[in-house]
Order: sequence, then structure tokens, then C-alpha cells
Amino acid sequence: MTVKYELIKEDKKTGARLGRLHTPHGVIDTPAFMPVGTQASVKAMTPHELIEIGAQIILSNTYHMYIRPGHKLVEKAGGLHGFMNWNRPILTDSGGFQVFSLNDLRKISEEGVVFRSHLDGSKHLFTPEYVMEIENSLGADIIMAFDECAPYPCEYDYAKESMERTARWLKRCKEAHGNTVRQSLFGIVQGSVYKDLRLESAKRTTEADLPGYAIGGLSVGEPKELMNEVLDYTLSELPKDRPRYLMGVGSPDCLIDGSIRGIDMFDCVLPTRIARNGTVMTSKGKLVVRNAEYSEDFSPLDEECDCYACRNFSRAYIRHLIKAGEILGGRLTTIHNLRFLQNLMSKIREAIETDSLTEYRNSFFEKYYHY
Amino acid sequence: MTVKYELIKEDKKTGARLGRLHTPHGVIDTPAFMPVGTQASVKAMTPHELIEIGAQIILSNTYHMYIRPGHKLVEKAGGLHGFMNWNRPILTDSGGFQVFSLNDLRKISEEGVVFRSHLDGSKHLFTPEYVMEIENSLGADIIMAFDECAPYPCEYDYAKESMERTARWLKRCKEAHGNTVRQSLFGIVQGSVYKDLRLESAKRTTEADLPGYAIGGLSVGEPKELMNEVLDYTLSELPKDRPRYLMGVGSPDCLIDGSIRGIDMFDCVLPTRIARNGTVMTSKGKLVVRNAEYSEDFSPLDEECDCYACRNFSRAYIRHLIKAGEILGGRLTTIHNLRFLQNLMSKIREAIETDSLTEYRNSFFEKYYHY
Repeated sequence: MTVKYELIKEDKKTGARLGRLHTPHGVIDTPAFMPVGTQASVKAMTPHELIEIGAQIILSNTYHMYIRPGHKLVEKAGGLHGFMNWNRPILTDSGGFQVFSLNDLRKISEEGVVFRSHLDGSKHLFTPEYVMEIENSLGADIIMAFDECAPYPCEYDYAKESMERTARWLKRCKEAHGNTVRQSLFGIVQGSVYKDLRLESAKRTTEADLPGYAIGGLSVGEPKELMNEVLDYTLSELPKDRPRYLMGVGSPDCLIDGSIRGIDMFDCVLPTRIARNGTVMTSKGKLVVRNAEYSEDFSPLDEECDCYACRNFSRAYIRHLIKAGEILGGRLTTIHNLRFLQNLMSKIREAIETDSLTEYRNSFFEKYYHY
Repeated sequence: MTVKYELIKEDKKTGARLGRLHTPHGVIDTPAFMPVGTQASVKAMTPHELIEIGAQIILSNTYHMYIRPGHKLVEKAGGLHGFMNWNRPILTDSGGFQVFSLNDLRKISEEGVVFRSHLDGSKHLFTPEYVMEIENSLGADIIMAFDECAPYPCEYDYAKESMERTARWLKRCKEAHGNTVRQSLFGIVQGSVYKDLRLESAKRTTEADLPGYAIGGLSVGEPKELMNEVLDYTLSELPKDRPRYLMGVGSPDCLIDGSIRGIDMFDCVLPTRIARNGTVMTSKGKLVVRNAEYSEDFSPLDEECDCYACRNFSRAYIRHLIKAGEILGGRLTTIHNLRFLQNLMSKIREAIETDSLTEYRNSFFEKYYHY
């Protein structure tokens, strides 16, 4: 168990935690946001630009790597670290979320999931054992157990059945995981929005005594209040000496509200995806820079930002690039959004240190959502 | 006349020239290759990456800037230099090549060219006077006169008529050019592949006594031998104390063969365009990195290259990125191709300095075309 969580400070009032996650490829200051590199590339970014925006860990997707270029090829290249030339920590998801998203293209059984590739329709079987083999080949510092992410809304009976299967699969993952020295397996708490199922799932997941735990199946369409409610009772069941990772969440409000509740890690494609469509996050809220109102606006995307895009280019120029379909447009908005979230996490950590996270939350929300 | 050509050394045997072009935004070592930033962006590159690959000057397209975002907007942003945050020299073409390429969408008269926008079909008129106004707004160090680039093949009578119109338009350009202190007007020699027309055009163009001259209407489909023949007799008519720019040429063989004949400047979209399709130039010839044979090739694109892509990534990874449609793939191949051509120009200049350009040509061709 080489990933180790160091709790620096817990805010007794809110449950927020300031910490450090020690991994074979370096230390991550938590709470942390992890940019997503689905196909072994955080879209539009070089590894050196990721370092420049302050990313300490990135996520990559097991399903995509398995389908193309194949995990065996990545293994030959020295794992994901060698393949993409990224020497900091990496986390791989289990492919569960992706194969379940294939809907008509997959079939679930106790053994695993049979699915068809989104690329060529070829048939594949993911079992907990096979997913561990793939993730071992990819070589990430943190690997996620193969789980089922139930949809929302979800009938109680199905959520229960699915959560129990996820728990059984976790046991098989733990047994099959072949590289416990360099790679740490995290379990995933499921149970949809049902309190008894979440508590049961938390109990069964933590019984596996793993180096970290994730909360899955949230931010899948449920109201935000419901997500926060689920987080509150689920987090109270997770051990304080292990990191807690809220999967698939990356909007500024949810990063703050998750951190306040004691989440240590987040990931989401949101900042990079909206960037390529010409939407950026700023200290005064979202800004659709492709809109005509910015055509002669020579100020930076965000006056308060220190990123490469804001230091060097105007809204007018970035708008032109995006309208003209220039690659540089999406590059600049991506750099900005990722830096914006790294700066946000930095401020969250500072606020925990100075016992002012609630105040920070209120002032951020005031500026971001009501400007 | 602020652009000044300094001839450092002329190879008496071949006619190749080693020089320096002094401009308001800095010095360019010649012979030089200019990357093309059609829409105020060299595709996929930041200005800082252009500096890193060694670009001393870039080209931008008047037609594209006029259509979108509009030259008045660019002027408000401080010209192209301010708009795109590039502080080194810029050359703008005249839009002639683009509007004549519109074929069915344009109509030529003595006054100018009426054409329809490729974006929205709106009707526009380019006259020599208006093109000067646009190029003055864009603010490049070097601006090209409005000319007609005749197609290939071209009837003698049409080539003559077109060349004469280009000569008359040059006079109007010179008269209309409003910023001779900061911007230098270059004239363009036309005349298709007819020797008497080229000589006549060279005479009429140089009579305008401009800070530089270009040779247009080549590399438009004619055999390479014919291009070299045209270059030979045309260049002999151009004054030695002014730079000579061969428009639209950028394959390694033509850069060497043009330099040997005394060309000082080149531009072409070729290196950036083929890069995005997964083709790179290497010291051992062209390499289609998207081909399956490179899927497990963990060597760099070119063992002899010092670019960011070659220092950090393998053919296998770059192939994966391009196959997967990742932006980073086209970024890396673009960086490589542009660096490859800058290194090539560097070696050409070195060879002129050491009186070994013919030998360099032969050894390069041997490796590049017969490997």
C-alpha cells in the first residue's frame, strides 16, 4: 500500500480536510482537482503545460486505453507514464462508467460486462480480474476497482442489486490486483441516492481495507442538494486516515461544496470540454468568449488570472481563434480553465488552513453566480 | 524604406546568398523560411513555440484577416503584432492569390477584383488602393502588392495581359501605400513560364524601386525543372541589394534549389498542413507517422532532430494521438515540421558560409529522397 494520506488539518466546523497524498510519483496537495486525459492526453495540453498550470495528478481512462491503442502497447512503452511522458502521479478509472454508458451495447452478468467497442463494434468482456490486468499494464499510481455506476433516477431494487454486485466485484479486484507495491487500489462506494444502500456500501467497501475510497454514482443528473445530502451521510462512514475521491465532479460550486464536506480528490472533463466550445470560468462567473459581445474586448479572459492565456492574449483574439476554428483557441481556453480550477483548489486549501472556508465559499459564490 | 537587406556573402559558383534582412521588428537571417499564420495564428502554435522552433518572421493572409475578424478590428488591437502577440517581423500577402483562387466567385477588371466571401457569400471589391489600406491596418513589416497569380498552364496571351495588369496595379499600390516608414512594399514578378514575360515583368517591377521583390506564380503545378528554369532567368534580372522572395514554396528540395539560385525568403503552408494529417519531414525523408508500421516504434520522429516533440515523445505515442484525433498529435507534428525546416535553412546558411551548398544539396537529397 504505497499511496499514503497525510491529514494536515481538519476543520471541525465543516469537515473539510487539508492533506497530502504521497504516491510513487510524487505528492499531491489535497483537496485536489485532477484534469482528465481520456486517451492518454489531457486534450490540447502537453505534459509540460500541465505542470505549468499546476496539475499534480491526472486521470486516464482504462476503457479508452484498452480499446485504443491497447494496454499491452502502453505497457511496452513503460506504462502510461512512459507512453505520454508524464512523470507525476496518474489515476486510472476502471472503465466501469464507460462500458455502462454504452447502454444497448453491453450486457451485465455476475461474471462481468460484455460490451461492444464504440469504434468498431467488436465484442469484449470486462471482468474485475481482467480490468485489474489492464490497469496493472497501464501502471497508474492509483487504480480504481471495477464497479457499476447506477444511472439516475434508479429504482431501489436495482440500486441495491447493483451496489451488492459492486461489493462482490471489489473483492475479486483486490484478489486479482497484481502490483500492490507500485499501484494502490481504491474501492468505490455506490448505492444511488438511498441512504441505507450508501451506508451499506460504505461499510462493505471500507471492510476491504484499501488505501483510498471513492464515491461514485453522483453528479449523474440528481439535484445538487441531493448530492450534498448523500455526501454528508456517506463521508461520515469513511475512515479519516484515507483519501476520499468524488468521481466526475468539476464545477466550481461542487468543488467547494465537496471540499467543505471532506472530499480530497475530484476529476471531471467539464473544464476542458467547455473550453473547446469557447466557454471559460472566471472569477466573475462563466464567460462564453465566442459571443459577439467580446469581439472588440481587448481585456484578458479573467483579470485575476495568472495563466499563459490571460498573460498574453485578449478576449477578442481568443474569440477570433475559436470562431475561425483555430486549434490555438481551444488550447488557450483549456489552459485557462485548468489553471482556474487549480487556483480555486489552492484557495480552498488556503481557506482550510486559515479556518475561513465557509467565508471563502460565500464570497466566491457571490462573485461567480450573482455577478 | 525601413526593410534593409544586408548581403553578407554571395556564392559566385551558384548564386546563393547569405544575408540579413533588417526590419522594424528585428533581423531575419536569410535564406529564411516563413511559417504561415493564415488567420493570425500559425495553426496549432503559440507565438512562444514559434520562437522556440526558431521562426524569425511569419506570414499572415490579408484576404482571411479582411473577411474575419476584419482589418479595422485588427488595427484597433494594435495591428497583427498586438492582436496575436507576436513581436517579431510579419509579412502579409495581398489577398491576390486567395481571391483568384475563388474561381467562379470572382470577376477581374482593370479597377480590381469583385469576389464573394467563402464564408457567407457576401460581395467585396479588392482594388490595389483598398488592399494597401487593409495591409496598412494589419501593420506588417513587409506588405505585398496586389497582383494576379496566373494559373498553370496559362495561355501566352492571358499571361501577358495579366502580367501587364499586375505591373499597372503595382504603380497604384505604391501610390496608395500610406505607411512607408513602418511598412515596406514588395512587388511581385509574374509572367507564368514565358521567359520574355518574366523578363519584362522583372524590369517593370524593379523600376518601381522597392525594398524587396517576390517571384509569384510558381509552384502552381508546373514541373520542378521548369520552375528552376524560370527562377534562373528571372533572378538574373533582380537587383542584388534587395531581398528576393519565392512565394508559396516550402518542400525541402525546393528550399535548397531556390536558395542555390539566390532566393532569400520562402513561405508555404505545406509543413503545417501535412503535419496535421500525420506526415512529418525527417532527415531520412517523409514519414507518415499515422501508418500502422509505427504503432510500436518507440523512437522519436527523427533521431537527428532537437525539437520538443523529438525530445519528449515517441512515434508510437504521436501515432496514437493522431489516430485518436487528439489535438496534441497535430501540435507535435507541426512543431517538428517547422523546426525541421528552420534547421534545414540553418544548414543551408552554414553551407553558403563554408562554400559547400552544392555538396550539402547532394548529401541531403541522397538521404531524403533515396533512403
